[in-house]
Amino acid sequence: MNGYFTPSYIARCATLAMVLEVSGTPKPGNIDRDHDYVTTKYEDFLASAVGVYSILEKACSESGIGQLILDASSESVLWQTGGNTHFGAYILLFPLIKAAARGNIGQLRTDAADIVKETTVEDAINFYKAFSMVEVRMKKPEDLEADDRELDVSGTGSLEELGRRGITMYDIMQISSKNDMVAREWVDGFRRSFEAADMIKNKRKTGTMNDATVLTYLELLAREPDTFIAKKYNMDKAVYVQGLALDVIERRMTLKELSNRLYLEKINPGSTADLMIAGLFIALLSGMRV
Amino acid sequence: MNGYFTPSYIARCATLAMVLEVSGTPKPGNIDRDHDYVTTKYEDFLASAVGVYSILEKACSESGIGQLILDASSESVLWQTGGNTHFGAYILLFPLIKAAARGNIGQLRTDAADIVKETTVEDAINFYKAFSMVEVRMKKPEDLEADDRELDVSGTGSLEELGRRGITMYDIMQISSKNDMVAREWVDGFRRSFEAADMIKNKRKTGTMNDATVLTYLELLAREPDTFIAKKYNMDKAVYVQGLALDVIERRMTLKELSNRLYLEKINPGSTADLMIAGLFIALLSGMRV
Repeated sequence: MNGYFTPSYIARCATLAMVLEVSGTPKPGNIDRDHDYVTTKYEDFLASAVGVYSILEKACSESGIGQLILDASSESVLWQTGGNTHFGAYILLFPLIKAAARGNIGQLRTDAADIVKETTVEDAINFYKAFSMVEVRMKKPEDLEADDRELDVSGTGSLEELGRRGITMYDIMQISSKNDMVAREWVDGFRRSFEAADMIKNKRKTGTMNDATVLTYLELLAREPDTFIAKKYNMDKAVYVQGLALDVIERRMTLKELSNRLYLEKINPGSTADLMIAGLFIALLSGMRV
Repeated sequence: MNGYFTPSYIARCATLAMVLEVSGTPKPGNIDRDHDYVTTKYEDFLASAVGVYSILEKACSESGIGQLILDASSESVLWQTGGNTHFGAYILLFPLIKAAARGNIGQLRTDAADIVKETTVEDAINFYKAFSMVEVRMKKPEDLEADDRELDVSGTGSLEELGRRGITMYDIMQISSKNDMVAREWVDGFRRSFEAADMIKNKRKTGTMNDATVLTYLELLAREPDTFIAKKYNMDKAVYVQGLALDVIERRMTLKELSNRLYLEKINPGSTADLMIAGLFIALLSGMRV
């Protein structure tokens, strides 16, 4: 057990990960230090990241993941006026925080993969309550298979249905993983989060913290279509953004051009930002300094 | 006692105050989200603000103010590579945090004024250790009266001298108050910090969080010569900046012009930034939301 892995240390790494992610600029399409949305500002993300510290610290020693997501979603809006800021990030952060609290950085990934499998029906119910509260557009009913349609959170009777069918939060993430890259992390043992962490750490060795954040974000965007875009618009739009990110990497377009275009077209790759937060958290936890 | 005044709530307000202060842009001369120095970046301030959270929380229940400043100065540089970031702010934050921990927001100012008077020789010794560690240019020997010259932290034997003469941290601040507006807050019962808080809260009612931060900073700059500038350069330079700030307020110059000029001339009003952090902390504590 590393002496640094106190609950406070883990929670500070998680808060700082959220602060650094939203600060990275230009981060095409998403809120950053130089780009607000009409209803949500950069400062809302900063306030939320600091405000939920107490829930991040609590996650080290108590409460299930569903309850923690519900608590963090409630706490966040006491600190800012921009509504939902970090819902997707919580889905990744809380299992990683609980894994970090076990104290073995070498086993962080396998511990996180185990922890998500241990989630319960109660986690599922609390997750759905939080989901409903923040009105995050996680999935549309038509995205689900027929059998899963009744689990749509906007429908009535979903909570009872979870209990009756014994569906855990891990089950929900498994169902969602087809169309959601955040949920996919639960099923894939946080592969992309750890890849992002390695990319961030490597880029930080030769560049600034901002470069490391922005360039990793760009690479993630070019690797896979962002599922937040796919759900908000459609898969074609998500693939279009993936192609544009590749254009920037291969120097057919500047980062600034991509940034301007996505803001103009109101396309925000929200799931990629969630992965970035997980990656930054893992990188900070393993000793990276800004 | 307000239920919200847990140590965690107080510390989150203090961290967020530091995060919001450094984020306010354009904040002429100082580091902000769009302005780095060569050796210190925006991200260093963010990381320091989050990294010292544990010391801010600890301040609610234990340790003297000198020890806390020493601890925070040490903790800060474990999180970032930009060196000293918040030394002046700690001098204001720790008494205010200890006052907040007493739980009566209505008495915050009188409690803080009492708390600084209760500081001891041990606080003075720890403060000087921290001061020496971060090499902050708090005062030059020639600024002190003859009798106080041997207290200059860069001289040898200062620590023994403090003990021999029974000089407390409050005494040091009283000596420094002639030439240091942060020290002056200890003597004046935090008058400027609470004025700043009122200005921030009022401006936030009709504008964005960033507007409230930047416009309050500008007004503080126009009210009094910044003593950090006076010590780094001379009083003429500090008065020159005060005049320029007034020019912006009276529309003879744009904020952007002032900002460009101060960055070009490498003039950073550091003490005004410290007052802003104290003001933001008080405003957040008393319920302001970003």
